[in-house]
Amino acid sequence: MNAPAPRLLGTHEMRVYWEDTDAGGVVYYANYLKFFERARTEWLRSIGVDQQRLRERDGVVFVVADARIAYHAPARLDDRLRVSVALREAGRASLVLEQSAWRDDTLLASGDVRVGCVDVATWRAQRIPGPILEAIDA
Amino acid sequence: MNAPAPRLLGTHEMRVYWEDTDAGGVVYYANYLKFFERARTEWLRSIGVDQQRLRERDGVVFVVADARIAYHAPARLDDRLRVSVALREAGRASLVLEQSAWRDDTLLASGDVRVGCVDVATWRAQRIPGPILEAIDA
Amino acid sequence: MNAPAPRLLGTHEMRVYWEDTDAGGVVYYANYLKFFERARTEWLRSIGVDQQRLRERDGVVFVVADARIAYHAPARLDDRLRVSVALREAGRASLVLEQSAWRDDTLLASGDVRVGCVDVATWRAQRIPGPILEAIDA
Amino acid sequence: MNAPAPRLLGTHEMRVYWEDTDAGGVVYYANYLKFFERARTEWLRSIGVDQQRLRERDGVVFVVADARIAYHAPARLDDRLRVSVALREAGRASLVLEQSAWRDDTLLASGDVRVGCVDVATWRAQRIPGPILEAIDA
Repeated sequence: MNAPAPRLLGTHEMRVYWEDTDAGGVVYYANYLKFFERARTEWLRSIGVDQQRLRERDGVVFVVADARIAYHAPARLDDRLRVSVALREAGRASLVLEQSAWRDDTLLASGDVRVGCVDVATWRAQRIPGPILEAIDA
Repeated sequence: MNAPAPRLLGTHEMRVYWEDTDAGGVVYYANYLKFFERARTEWLRSIGVDQQRLRERDGVVFVVADARIAYHAPARLDDRLRVSVALREAGRASLVLEQSAWRDDTLLASGDVRVGCVDVATWRAQRIPGPILEAIDA
Repeated sequence: MNAPAPRLLGTHEMRVYWEDTDAGGVVYYANYLKFFERARTEWLRSIGVDQQRLRERDGVVFVVADARIAYHAPARLDDRLRVSVALREAGRASLVLEQSAWRDDTLLASGDVRVGCVDVATWRAQRIPGPILEAIDA
Repeated sequence: MNAPAPRLLGTHEMRVYWEDTDAGGVVYYANYLKFFERARTEWLRSIGVDQQRLRERDGVVFVVADARIAYHAPARLDDRLRVSVALREAGRASLVLEQSAWRDDTLLASGDVRVGCVDVATWRAQRIPGPILEAIDA
């Protein structure tokens, strides 16, 4: 039996700047995690979630519990990237998101990121606020 | 039958500065990949490998093929971290390194990083230079 | 006698992400130089200058010779910034650009950046390619 | 009448890693402000100032009000840098620090950074805590 295919939640476009590259002439490997996070943030924004308000009002914050990333082809200065967020699994306190970075039809990097919802003070797992789960189910 | 235990290759200490933290008050998740890379660089230096010379003389460079990382506890400003590099697998063109970041006895993050040796121009897999493999075997 | 008012060359909008902030809850001070550089890059792109081609074909690259920056108000996560590039002085081998970052009507940071055109190998001053100077004069 | 020569407060050594470089093969210009900040942090630590405690106990934080930086020579991967902090002016609520980055006898970057002591909530200027001013005078 196969796992269901991840469902696309959103896509974010961004440009590669000097700050993103390294002396190898390509995007520094850690920076793809920044790009993935930008895409997650823009997806949350697109469903009406303001992370600062989430923090101040609900007292919760999303943190990355673990991540896997594979590098397929290098990105370079001035490249236009398209970064996607797809849902692989939704639990009560965490989500597994599948993320990819593309330049046109070339897959540059792909991976899974598990984000957990935690209490801002104790860092303990919390239920993901209802409106977010509803937006995901919609 | 179990896989052999990873063999410690090196340990590098570093401090958490403002630049490493984010508005959540903790080290930003992508930065652990920077810390892991610093520890790999210092290990290479400790066995006499100069990456710039490797690039200019041998025409090869190490690139990360894939990485897995799990976040166990947050690091904060001024924390003193200890980042380790251990060998999990050595192939002819790539190494799998197990890396961890600690603050005293608290494990903060751990993961595996597969680095491949590639031709600097074509980005194709190359044999790891002999002296490096010998230093690893020693 | 007053210096002529700087002439606006371009404006670039960008979002503040987690990666840009620090544990003080605001954008880390060095990152405004990244934002300024993004705006310069987008301005160059808008006048048809591809920096990679400039480097490979003309053998020149723009480097920052010096910069001044004043911080007026903090930017925070999710803020939408507008970063401007204006021309203060154009020489044969360098430009002085006035740059500012705004959130709505609030000036967050402002400064001057002197960029020089240098030979990619020797790092010596070179004339700015004609088409760039013409685009600036237009 | 000349201003008095800046008085050296501290020096910090650091290594250039891949993360610090850009596709030009040199240290990205904004990163010198990170290096300057590391040296300021280490100087504060050397006189017994813990910035997290300063924030939580005294309710103040140091923020950069303005900075000037000139780039003299590029730093590259693996370079060992020495970054200095010297006192140019001490006011009741702010300090002007002169900072330089060196590789052996080569001056790479130099500048002035004005740091102000502000209330952590209102971001208004506050007196620098007495023990810090005393340590500076000593």
